[in-house]
Amino acid sequence: MTEYSRTTRAAANLIIPLIKVDRLLSLGVRDQIRSEISRLIAEGALEQGAQLPSCRAMAQGLSVAVNSVLGAYLKLIDEGILSSKPKSGYFVSLELSASPLQGSAKTKTRETTNILDRITKGKLPSKGSYIVRPPDWPKYKYPFVCNQIPVNRFPLAQWRECMRLAMNSRDVASWAGDNQYWDSDEFLQEVCTRILPRRGVAARPENVLVTLGAQQAIYIISSLLRGYGRVVAMEDPGYPDARNIFEQIFDEIRFIPVDDEGIIVDERLAECDLVYVTPNRQFPTTIAMSARRREMLLKMAESADFLIIEDDYDGDTDFSEEVEAPLYSGNRNGRVIYINSLSKSVAPGLRLGFLVAQEDLVSEARALRGLMIRHTPLLLQKTAGLFLKFGYHDALCKRLHAIFEQRIAIASGIIDDLFPQFDIRNEDGSTIFVMTDKAGRDAQMIKEKALQANIVIEPLWPCYSDDKKGKSSFRIGLSAIPSDQIEPGLTLLSETVGTV
Amino acid sequence: MTEYSRTTRAAANLIIPLIKVDRLLSLGVRDQIRSEISRLIAEGALEQGAQLPSCRAMAQGLSVAVNSVLGAYLKLIDEGILSSKPKSGYFVSLELSASPLQGSAKTKTRETTNILDRITKGKLPSKGSYIVRPPDWPKYKYPFVCNQIPVNRFPLAQWRECMRLAMNSRDVASWAGDNQYWDSDEFLQEVCTRILPRRGVAARPENVLVTLGAQQAIYIISSLLRGYGRVVAMEDPGYPDARNIFEQIFDEIRFIPVDDEGIIVDERLAECDLVYVTPNRQFPTTIAMSARRREMLLKMAESADFLIIEDDYDGDTDFSEEVEAPLYSGNRNGRVIYINSLSKSVAPGLRLGFLVAQEDLVSEARALRGLMIRHTPLLLQKTAGLFLKFGYHDALCKRLHAIFEQRIAIASGIIDDLFPQFDIRNEDGSTIFVMTDKAGRDAQMIKEKALQANIVIEPLWPCYSDDKKGKSSFRIGLSAIPSDQIEPGLTLLSETVGTV
Repeated sequence: MTEYSRTTRAAANLIIPLIKVDRLLSLGVRDQIRSEISRLIAEGALEQGAQLPSCRAMAQGLSVAVNSVLGAYLKLIDEGILSSKPKSGYFVSLELSASPLQGSAKTKTRETTNILDRITKGKLPSKGSYIVRPPDWPKYKYPFVCNQIPVNRFPLAQWRECMRLAMNSRDVASWAGDNQYWDSDEFLQEVCTRILPRRGVAARPENVLVTLGAQQAIYIISSLLRGYGRVVAMEDPGYPDARNIFEQIFDEIRFIPVDDEGIIVDERLAECDLVYVTPNRQFPTTIAMSARRREMLLKMAESADFLIIEDDYDGDTDFSEEVEAPLYSGNRNGRVIYINSLSKSVAPGLRLGFLVAQEDLVSEARALRGLMIRHTPLLLQKTAGLFLKFGYHDALCKRLHAIFEQRIAIASGIIDDLFPQFDIRNEDGSTIFVMTDKAGRDAQMIKEKALQANIVIEPLWPCYSDDKKGKSSFRIGLSAIPSDQIEPGLTLLSETVGTV
Repeated sequence: MTEYSRTTRAAANLIIPLIKVDRLLSLGVRDQIRSEISRLIAEGALEQGAQLPSCRAMAQGLSVAVNSVLGAYLKLIDEGILSSKPKSGYFVSLELSASPLQGSAKTKTRETTNILDRITKGKLPSKGSYIVRPPDWPKYKYPFVCNQIPVNRFPLAQWRECMRLAMNSRDVASWAGDNQYWDSDEFLQEVCTRILPRRGVAARPENVLVTLGAQQAIYIISSLLRGYGRVVAMEDPGYPDARNIFEQIFDEIRFIPVDDEGIIVDERLAECDLVYVTPNRQFPTTIAMSARRREMLLKMAESADFLIIEDDYDGDTDFSEEVEAPLYSGNRNGRVIYINSLSKSVAPGLRLGFLVAQEDLVSEARALRGLMIRHTPLLLQKTAGLFLKFGYHDALCKRLHAIFEQRIAIASGIIDDLFPQFDIRNEDGSTIFVMTDKAGRDAQMIKEKALQANIVIEPLWPCYSDDKKGKSSFRIGLSAIPSDQIEPGLTLLSETVGTV
């Protein structure tokens, strides 16, 4: 039997420039790729047994969504044109025709060391469940993505000013030099005086650790609290990346359902050691945890002896009249670890986050973060410190609140009429509509159709522990899409939904 | 029995501004702190039972070395003036006089939850072995620290130019927005075309993962390759932070001695799964691994089925005529993972590093890094990409080589005469002198005396698995100290050594 070629991953990528994709064509991207691959096989540019680029490489090369490439490959497999080999990739099918293959007598290529097979226990980091957006989603005409900043409103002039000041020639040592495990004092100070008090949190610099976004805060706390037989609990549905982190680190994850008051607090939590929650706005349902539930959770933390990780990811951009203070602010028992970042207000690409906790825990978290990365880059800490100090962040949040309120007003006026077949939920102060198709159509299919119509939406199923749940729900976010695109985008989406 | 006050950590810090330290006094910093604390107790500003600031808080507040504060506290404990309570801190001794304490009948303060006791298994991240430098070492007059950039030679104008270009208004989305798990294409490309070829490494962007310095590269690879019963080997002496990382992650570390050819390759390596080495310049001995030893190591990796982590930390700043290509360049078996960074040439504070490996491993490392931090901040990646593209890094390395060569010439001319009682080693192309006192005096004591004389040096003992080894060795680095301070600094150090 002829071998599939396994060493031509690099060579495989050479075909990418030969594939033409045109967004303006009415044919979907997936189908364009599919037809182009067929063409290349027909023309002999792709031989039988030849390896295709990975979905990722192809998607990057063509600036299209990975899903589109995957869809094209799967279609071609259905059609018998491609074959897939586990852990190897996609190949032009050997059974394609009866003609003998060229080069089949070539020396067998050296097996690459299969490192991953040998050293992991089936828990590869890439195997998590993710909210998949096209990498180039900002280029889509109607990006209804959730919790993303409106890039066109980024306060560039102010950021540049702060960056210029931070790069002052007298202070080079303070950001270019090795700061060992320490953060920028100025940034810590501003977090304590400018950000935390807005949320009702009183903390001193020694209670704060700067992280690479909220993501790293979750990772550090999880790693620090890892031990034998440790059990972590999280909301179900919940934040997929928290789940992916916990899967890497903990022995067991308990998925606790949420209702209209947030996570259900009952005996299921009693056996847990750590509970991850998003009280201000439950991810992904956007429901705020009720006062009663907060009280129950804090009490049970003490009686059942567990710690709470509170991810306050959207506290700063919540534009409701009265935003509830975080659990941390009523943290009478020292059991709450508070997480927030500048990713939802300033910029996620800067990766500036922080955690707040009691001092001894922060000291150890700092030592562990030191081992992981030393510290968050100091130039960014210094620049952000100035940005906060000058009040630019406060002003930005105010501006965002106004923009978001206006956007919600636009959408609220039309969404019921456009989507009569949907159960539609929008919580006060949130930029997100949670849509559930009463007819039960598959949100993933709606998403794919929408992508072809230049619209990005976010299905809910990756947030559930059981990925058969939430199948007909998706989220529409208004934080990133320009205001004047909301009406045409929703109209087009409603038409697209009609064709599924 | 009267309780020691345990809730006054914040209040404790209030005394810091009352303590006066003057570097110009001939009295050492430690002793100044000691006498100041005594004074405050005498004056009643510090009451019996009162808690003192943590060593760190005090050191930061006074801009002195943590060691100096610790030294002062220990002295005061010896003298019966202070007491220490495990996990609580330092207190003014209750036995100091017979007078009754005020407030001794106060309500017992609430016990803080002792989270760390409960949840870790005695492997606290802070308990590692570190090369301790004063946090404010750049302010010392004679900073003979190792592997640190000369901050006064930082190419600030060029860096600012690149930063300005990176912050172009049309490209905001490319660094402010959420890039999910992806790196900057431009930076990856420049690493492949500008940095790696200088070191004889051929790689494509899909072989490269951007990390937060070399530190994170070690952490990610270790976490990815963790499994039950895994054994990691490292050089002894070796890089303490690698050891600290391995202690967090692996079940067992094998410490393999080094000789004049580098790590000894024998049956001790055969049972290991992962071997961490610093072939270009063994850390901390600065010895280059011989060609013969490299060959043996690569061969054994295959026969004994282990992977090699190659930390090429100083390949770019090595100024010897012919720098050996890394193991990765001869990586015929796909078993070498290459690590490097911009920390030794451009700036450690920026935290720009990378790892190079086969594509499937990089994919998983990328997914894991995604869980940990998503990605290295994109604005820094873009800026560094331009810095590389414009050839500024090449020029910088050339400049550094010239400066370093000149500094070594200055030191080489005088060091033998100044330190006749020492065994002195300086490898070709290295900015470091490894000094061993033939009389066996304690390098830690020399270090402390030197600090008081405004000199920073680095004892070798934290690099040994057995911290009783290497006791009389220390390193003198010339990379960070201004050239004109070398001669007076070495002279003063030689005098200081004479007083130990």
